[in-house]
Amino acid sequence: MELAFAKLDGLIPAVIQDHATREVLMLGFLNPEALEYTQLTGEVHFFSRTRQRLWKKGETSGHVLRVRQLLFDCDADSLLIRVEAVGPGVCHQGYQSCFFRELELDGTSHIVAERAFAVEEVYGKKGTQ
Amino acid sequence: MELAFAKLDGLIPAVIQDHATREVLMLGFLNPEALEYTQLTGEVHFFSRTRQRLWKKGETSGHVLRVRQLLFDCDADSLLIRVEAVGPGVCHQGYQSCFFRELELDGTSHIVAERAFAVEEVYGKKGTQ
Repeated sequence: MELAFAKLDGLIPAVIQDHATREVLMLGFLNPEALEYTQLTGEVHFFSRTRQRLWKKGETSGHVLRVRQLLFDCDADSLLIRVEAVGPGVCHQGYQSCFFRELELDGTSHIVAERAFAVEEVYGKKGTQ
Repeated sequence: MELAFAKLDGLIPAVIQDHATREVLMLGFLNPEALEYTQLTGEVHFFSRTRQRLWKKGETSGHVLRVRQLLFDCDADSLLIRVEAVGPGVCHQGYQSCFFRELELDGTSHIVAERAFAVEEVYGKKGTQ
């Protein structure tokens, strides 16, 4: 099975979903190397677009994502990775899910989730993921 | 609230999730115009990368996606749209979710879902979405 990395400059978006609750935790991008590391280690690796390097989710926080099921879509250009998320949350802003804000019609937003952990205790002051 | 369209050539990926079952149905990309149409009509519009145009999901099939909640992530560069999906499935290959195949470690894949509808009855022979 060939995934369509070429459609997006060598990257493929991956939806990270909690395998038990079915909540969507985050979205990241994988390049072929990140997919290889993800499959070999059983823990999700991304390609960080900001840092332009391989990035094991949880390398700083310890909040790793253990792969339970790896699915791909009809066009083979997106992944859905069902995971067991270690720790209270995946978001570097202290929430269980990175999708903690709702966008309103008028362009304003509001927070719809409770903080799950203290950011500085987990990440230090840098706030990297 | 400004979304980070510039990070990906004017596009932002959107995870489409069933609001009731929490199943992930598909992933698509929005440009600012698609977001505007989505918010104004309450039905999900994408920017089709293949056809390079605004694309209302369900324009051919009638399988529209009614927005129930629109969330965005910590970096404001991804959307999570919780929807009520009209019809038996969103995938132009006849499945409820586009993520109907599992990728194995050895690179092979297998189908993990049941067909939800007959493709030719819904899309005709063209198979567009």
